[in-house]
Amino acid sequence: MRQSHMFIPTLKENPADADIKSHQLLVRAGYIRQIASGIYSFLPIGQRVLRKVENIVREEMEKIGAHEMAMPALEPSELWKETGRWSTFGSELMRLNDRHNREFALGATHEEVITSLVRHEVKSYKQLPLTVFQIQNKFRDEARPRFGLLRGREFLMKDAYSFNESYESLDETYDLMFQAYSNVFSRLGLNFRAVIADSGAMGGKDTHEFMVLSEVGEDVIAYSDTSRYAANIEMAPVTAVYEKSPAAPMDMEKVETPDCRTMQEVADFFGHKLEEGLKAILFKVDEQFVMAVTRGDHEVNDVKLKNLYDADMVELATAEDTKRMMGAGFGSLGPVGVPEEVEVVADQAVEALVNVTCGANEDGYHYKNATPEKDFQVSRYADLRFIQEGDPSPDGEGVIKFARGIEVGHVFKLGEFYSQRMNATFLNDQGKASTMIMGSYGIGVSRTLAAVVEQYNDERGITWPANIAPFQVHLLSMNPKKEEQKELADQLYDQLLESGIEVLYDDRKERAGVKFADSDLFGIPVRVTVGKQAGEGIVEVKERASGEQKELSASEIADYIKNWYKA
Amino acid sequence: MRQSHMFIPTLKENPADADIKSHQLLVRAGYIRQIASGIYSFLPIGQRVLRKVENIVREEMEKIGAHEMAMPALEPSELWKETGRWSTFGSELMRLNDRHNREFALGATHEEVITSLVRHEVKSYKQLPLTVFQIQNKFRDEARPRFGLLRGREFLMKDAYSFNESYESLDETYDLMFQAYSNVFSRLGLNFRAVIADSGAMGGKDTHEFMVLSEVGEDVIAYSDTSRYAANIEMAPVTAVYEKSPAAPMDMEKVETPDCRTMQEVADFFGHKLEEGLKAILFKVDEQFVMAVTRGDHEVNDVKLKNLYDADMVELATAEDTKRMMGAGFGSLGPVGVPEEVEVVADQAVEALVNVTCGANEDGYHYKNATPEKDFQVSRYADLRFIQEGDPSPDGEGVIKFARGIEVGHVFKLGEFYSQRMNATFLNDQGKASTMIMGSYGIGVSRTLAAVVEQYNDERGITWPANIAPFQVHLLSMNPKKEEQKELADQLYDQLLESGIEVLYDDRKERAGVKFADSDLFGIPVRVTVGKQAGEGIVEVKERASGEQKELSASEIADYIKNWYKA
Repeated sequence: MRQSHMFIPTLKENPADADIKSHQLLVRAGYIRQIASGIYSFLPIGQRVLRKVENIVREEMEKIGAHEMAMPALEPSELWKETGRWSTFGSELMRLNDRHNREFALGATHEEVITSLVRHEVKSYKQLPLTVFQIQNKFRDEARPRFGLLRGREFLMKDAYSFNESYESLDETYDLMFQAYSNVFSRLGLNFRAVIADSGAMGGKDTHEFMVLSEVGEDVIAYSDTSRYAANIEMAPVTAVYEKSPAAPMDMEKVETPDCRTMQEVADFFGHKLEEGLKAILFKVDEQFVMAVTRGDHEVNDVKLKNLYDADMVELATAEDTKRMMGAGFGSLGPVGVPEEVEVVADQAVEALVNVTCGANEDGYHYKNATPEKDFQVSRYADLRFIQEGDPSPDGEGVIKFARGIEVGHVFKLGEFYSQRMNATFLNDQGKASTMIMGSYGIGVSRTLAAVVEQYNDERGITWPANIAPFQVHLLSMNPKKEEQKELADQLYDQLLESGIEVLYDDRKERAGVKFADSDLFGIPVRVTVGKQAGEGIVEVKERASGEQKELSASEIADYIKNWYKA
Repeated sequence: MRQSHMFIPTLKENPADADIKSHQLLVRAGYIRQIASGIYSFLPIGQRVLRKVENIVREEMEKIGAHEMAMPALEPSELWKETGRWSTFGSELMRLNDRHNREFALGATHEEVITSLVRHEVKSYKQLPLTVFQIQNKFRDEARPRFGLLRGREFLMKDAYSFNESYESLDETYDLMFQAYSNVFSRLGLNFRAVIADSGAMGGKDTHEFMVLSEVGEDVIAYSDTSRYAANIEMAPVTAVYEKSPAAPMDMEKVETPDCRTMQEVADFFGHKLEEGLKAILFKVDEQFVMAVTRGDHEVNDVKLKNLYDADMVELATAEDTKRMMGAGFGSLGPVGVPEEVEVVADQAVEALVNVTCGANEDGYHYKNATPEKDFQVSRYADLRFIQEGDPSPDGEGVIKFARGIEVGHVFKLGEFYSQRMNATFLNDQGKASTMIMGSYGIGVSRTLAAVVEQYNDERGITWPANIAPFQVHLLSMNPKKEEQKELADQLYDQLLESGIEVLYDDRKERAGVKFADSDLFGIPVRVTVGKQAGEGIVEVKERASGEQKELSASEIADYIKNWYKA
């Protein structure tokens, strides 16, 4: 395409609101423009990249037998009410009324719509398993849209849904999908991990998030330094084994501890390490008050607490409840002398401790030399804390490190959550009505594009992987006012097009410096410059990523490019 | 693809709400399903056809140098307020508020968004002309969604926008676009006409609608029986020449005409033809009252009246206004003795009349033997009526016929309507600020798919044109329980796939009758049936549209299909 009549507005400066590389570069290089907070247009070169990413996703979906379809963005509220999500989805779900005052959700996801379609049309186990997908814009009214395409309110997503006759069959579909996702992100050249994630309120079994490792990621991943193990930090079990301290228990003693509120202040006051104190937090677990106790250097993981109780809800007790139940404020809680209505549970690390400090359940006082069993009772010891860097990896290989990640994909065993509520049944091979077993699988297509830019850039701009670059070649004429340059460049442009090569031709009457800067910004993998040696038919070829350059005869260029892309 | 695990639910009966062929067949054959009134899902085989139609549109757009981009569905109300369309677009525009109570329109069209993008980024005539397009779902809250995909509320549309430096340049882009549209609809095998249309309130110059001829169309087209001329009936000028009646004018006479309200009743009362009476209608043209007079067998065309006065608004005078101004009701109006504040204009056919009847502006009375100039004055004669079948074609070739049409495309010279209101200017080659000249161009992609079905069907189902059929071959095994049939069909399936042929394989354990009926319904152009002669390696090949069939050796099939599609 001729750049002179293509809509690629570039900027010299970073936009004021852009804090991260992908946001800065995609705007500066004319790939995207913001229309409203969290809402973007893809300009022509952005759209070209987006379609290439989309096609890779499509190919991998089709390879595993998923069939593409297209559900509407307007989803009747009746369907969302059947599953209860009309109320539970909250204000992220955009809603509107039509002219007859019927309520609609603006497609944030399509579990309800696909289940309503399948329940009417699929009657027999012979039609299962069934996997469908679609690629379209989704709408979520994020409270704080930010980071350009990474957290938007309207974004391109691939969502897939599977219907199976059994959990075993779901496992098979899930594994296929898992592999397809790995293929997609590998083909995009991304450094990613499949991360064990929280299945949340969905009641599903397994769920993995696909995370691209990046400093700007909003999630923290715990991964093994030697194996493929990776999990969201709230999901990683702690497998550390604690040896009981050999010290002899001493007599517990109450001490006035003025102005000691944090664990650090208490440790400093007593002159011991953080891990020689106990941290105690009062939770409300469904309707019950529970004190969770960990070592001072550990953090309670409320997901684990929730799972321990198989609870629907875990929240911190309010200041009022804490004062009323314990007689003290947050900074002075401890497991000694806890009223009967409050259950005390502790992380397994606590069991090994001897002679530690803890709050005295009296504002301004702590105990020292408290020892479990001797001075306080714990109803259950369990893995209740967040994993930390240096902990052993739960798969037994290596130790845990932390990294930040951008979630680009999610595979999810839904089980019967939707099919049960929406009565999606089929006749099994015994002729009996049975509930369908479902899975759902998402890829944030536009977010993935941004994640690629986070991993592929340098100080001069984007450095696209070859298979999703907007064009294969960027052809420049250094000075199109010189007839011989213009002529050779025009010829080369026609030749490259005829050879089926995707070429962007900077035919603008701009200074060479402007053209080179724009070219580096765009990040097309190969640049061909027609300059002073045009008279001899010599042009310069430069690789964007490595910076390597060489001179070639114009007649060799088409073959050179083809070979470059084959390699 | 194997049909057993593809989501293609077929129905034996027409859905109750489906009145037209495309709606009936697309639902029955499992291409689409309704989610809510006017809102459809495309099931897997529907999506395959839709993508093929989409790709034809995309190819033709790219051929003329339009660049694809993607604007969001969520459009901030501020932009629509700049052009005034936030209020004028009315209740077809779906609206919603985000969590911060900011107003958005749900993309019905994107003139405002693209103009806001271009005005910020395009500064110089050197960057013009510029044409962009996108293909995405659009939202319009139709008062009465009906006819399946023909009039929906969420539908796939291609919209394109051009920015030019002059009207001459716009003419060039418009012509390119016109040709591209003709190519699209020709490639889809549609019987269509490019129809001169009303530019409405947009202030544009030329506009054409692309209409697929069809009895179920909602628009009436006037077309020449011998040339390519076609226009919306309200747009077609009447070029008939009327010869003055040779009869001598008689004395006008007032006659009591009880119960004569319609033109027909008056004609019957006097015992003359419809065309020997005058029809007079009182309009309000902006702030002025105008009586429009036509021959009794003609109909006033209010678009022509509006154009005559270059008015913003033309509406029928109310019953009250009519009584007050004229002293009589609708059924007794006439041009004789009209008060000075009311201007009388007449269709050019009236000028040739002598001795006609007309209302006496007194309820229950008419004049007979009224003659223009002698008995009443007309301030202007002009072409004010609708064209009729049998009128000469305005291009001088042939006579006018009427047909109904489905509007599938629209090309539109917008001129400065948006660019002026939104201040989209550029520096022209003289360095002076100049307003951009715009065009907009739409194709209803999903509606076009339905229009194809209206033209390609028979009593057994759809008969897709080869280039947009969901698959190239439908492969059936008559009785998959017979090992030799199953084996040969499986082999053929693999062979066809390897040859790069798109094949749907009905591997279901259903009766042959069910399979044949479904196959006819789907409308895949070529069917290959593996039946009783499987043992000898012989299969049956049948063309869906012609019904022609022959027996072939299974080994020849792949080549046969390839040649069939080449031809």
